[in-house]
Amino acid sequence: MHRDYRSYSREELLREEEELKKEYERFRAMNLSLTMTRGGPCREQVDLSEGMLQVIDSGAKCFSGKTDIRNYGMLDGIPEMKQIFADLLHVMPENVICGGNSSLNMMYDAISRAMVFGTAPGFVPWSKQRELKFLCPVPGYDRHFAICEVFGIKMIPIEMTSAGPDMHEVREYAENDPTVKGIWCVPKYSNPDGTVYSPETVRAFASLRPAARDFRIFWDNAYCVHDLYEEIPLTDIFAECRSVGAKNMVYEFASTSKISFPGSGVACLVADEADILWAKKLLSFQTIGPDKINQKRHAAFFRTADGIRAHMKKHAEILRPKFETVEATLDRELEGRGIADFSRPRGGYFISFNQTIGSVRRAVALTADAGVALTPAGSAFPYHEDPYDRNVRIAPTFPSIEDLKTACELFSVAVRIAACERLLGMN
Amino acid sequence: MHRDYRSYSREELLREEEELKKEYERFRAMNLSLTMTRGGPCREQVDLSEGMLQVIDSGAKCFSGKTDIRNYGMLDGIPEMKQIFADLLHVMPENVICGGNSSLNMMYDAISRAMVFGTAPGFVPWSKQRELKFLCPVPGYDRHFAICEVFGIKMIPIEMTSAGPDMHEVREYAENDPTVKGIWCVPKYSNPDGTVYSPETVRAFASLRPAARDFRIFWDNAYCVHDLYEEIPLTDIFAECRSVGAKNMVYEFASTSKISFPGSGVACLVADEADILWAKKLLSFQTIGPDKINQKRHAAFFRTADGIRAHMKKHAEILRPKFETVEATLDRELEGRGIADFSRPRGGYFISFNQTIGSVRRAVALTADAGVALTPAGSAFPYHEDPYDRNVRIAPTFPSIEDLKTACELFSVAVRIAACERLLGMN
Repeated sequence: MHRDYRSYSREELLREEEELKKEYERFRAMNLSLTMTRGGPCREQVDLSEGMLQVIDSGAKCFSGKTDIRNYGMLDGIPEMKQIFADLLHVMPENVICGGNSSLNMMYDAISRAMVFGTAPGFVPWSKQRELKFLCPVPGYDRHFAICEVFGIKMIPIEMTSAGPDMHEVREYAENDPTVKGIWCVPKYSNPDGTVYSPETVRAFASLRPAARDFRIFWDNAYCVHDLYEEIPLTDIFAECRSVGAKNMVYEFASTSKISFPGSGVACLVADEADILWAKKLLSFQTIGPDKINQKRHAAFFRTADGIRAHMKKHAEILRPKFETVEATLDRELEGRGIADFSRPRGGYFISFNQTIGSVRRAVALTADAGVALTPAGSAFPYHEDPYDRNVRIAPTFPSIEDLKTACELFSVAVRIAACERLLGMN
Repeated sequence: MHRDYRSYSREELLREEEELKKEYERFRAMNLSLTMTRGGPCREQVDLSEGMLQVIDSGAKCFSGKTDIRNYGMLDGIPEMKQIFADLLHVMPENVICGGNSSLNMMYDAISRAMVFGTAPGFVPWSKQRELKFLCPVPGYDRHFAICEVFGIKMIPIEMTSAGPDMHEVREYAENDPTVKGIWCVPKYSNPDGTVYSPETVRAFASLRPAARDFRIFWDNAYCVHDLYEEIPLTDIFAECRSVGAKNMVYEFASTSKISFPGSGVACLVADEADILWAKKLLSFQTIGPDKINQKRHAAFFRTADGIRAHMKKHAEILRPKFETVEATLDRELEGRGIADFSRPRGGYFISFNQTIGSVRRAVALTADAGVALTPAGSAFPYHEDPYDRNVRIAPTFPSIEDLKTACELFSVAVRIAACERLLGMN
């Protein structure tokens, strides 16, 4: 436990800064080249699915029932894969569309369809409406926000609480402003905070009565089975919607990108019947079908949702020590200094770091200059605008434990330098 | 050689019709269930790529240079696959984006991007323009026309000649009407006629000076290496464009759907530098990258463009007798009757059948009633409007030779019945 910087005298701060700069130079001299930017699985995780490369090794195995899946067709994917996603997400297979390798692409396409064709037959396409807004819980996922930005959808930040987005704010906007068309949610192990939405939050979502009839909740369940410790259940949003009679309000997304291969997984869209019908109708103009052999690889390798759950325990074994290394290193270097805190997630891919004293941009720049890349500060906010210059997302999954330790030590030094400078009025 | 129906007396026609109806009932009694609808490879063709299911069987083989292709990244595909497409299509790899399994999806996305974002930075999106038109050589590919229809792009039919689209018509429209934004072309073994555009036609395309600066030629080179007999070269459109200084006018598409696996191939977009940059920029919001392991499978299995060319000779050996069966059967049944003709393509996937006497809809319906599905008459025309009720596309690739013979015999009977009825003034 260190002493709080805010109790330091000016001289103490100057001395501290001088010491830290020397330490920083020692890191620079190491010529590091590390990255903790994106949430990519490491080689050992990817190796866990080695068997998937061999499981479909003949044409005879390329059948789904009597259908030769090497050929065209099956717009919404093979039944085996739909069943697995349905079981994982507690929905019915007929509510699932299995697509290609990217859930991001399915989210982009869902927005694109809403823009050009509307969310349902007869609805005015979003692009023909006067103004469009999306609610964006912050900190959040930069690629969600980028989709809004490229489509010209205005983003409204919503504060995250420990139970999920501030539902009072969400309700205020969604129920009173018909130009609010949607909200981005990562309901389990939110990116980057690692928050699991509470049952009350999920229920509050199901109970929303949006002013816009073409409002959709984008429920990006990217980390649905990505527990690091015990399995933490997420309340089922579709079940909650059914119980209050809400329909066609949720698009759920998931994928095996962080289960099998990040570049060669299978993604899915889950929605109510009418939403699925409309998506499939429009999809039929776009493609003849997804890569079904790859879906079959997944179905044959994992067999069931339980097969995936068992597989994820192996991922967790690799990832737990990495998360714990980051947490322990940051604790050791920063605890008690009164300049920072960070999330201690029970799953997902990120640790959300807050330089509470507000000069994280400087800390990230110093860290980068010494050879360790972090996600640019501000990335977790719409338009990259972090109002408090505070948040950065740490992705502990890809580097080795050794490298993580070094990177976090360097980062801690950078955070302390930036804090000294801030307290000295230099930034 | 049969006698021309048009020389039959009324009594002769009635007698002929009566005989044909008996023959037709014999076919109906066979309870056939065959399809010659879509251009799908048959099982034997798909089996040719069996080795592709085994070629990448370990993580160690999942590398492109030093990059682990199982992980995220490489937005425009792996270099090996870009090189193969570049060699096949006589372009540079930097002009190639390798995508997922569907060139149709890449075409749809190209239109979608133009609709929402415009064809280049600063250009007005198509969807914000007053009116949009596409030129559609007819007969053509129904899925091209369907994309126009769903996006509300008005289609103008252009007559096909034996050298490609009527370039006088194309020039008239494209160079004088700024609402004409594009044209669909299948330049080699056009769907369904099997026409290879002549060097003069390709040059005329390159020399177009469209009134719309955001005009694009959609060059769907679906059958670029799909020769049934000798290799027939297609004049290179990008080379011709370069030689006359035309830039950013062509989007070329190709895929391995009819080379490896129809549902699990690799598709590509080829374009000039600025068009590629813009596409990649927008693509970066849509996805993190395509399925690179599947691209690697293709690169490892085929190795080079020549590897693909050699592979296509095996396809041709399977397909040639099928095309010849259709041609021989139709010749035997219909030649000289003065009621029909059909294309005799040197490659591609279709035979274009014209019931010159103009009652093909009736013939297709009769054929379907007896258990043989053909593409609905009119499908090869925008809005399904065949002005002469004449054309139907026959896809000989999927059924067995035996089945093709039966199907064509039945179809010939149906064509003759429909012709008799037409000549008798009954339809």
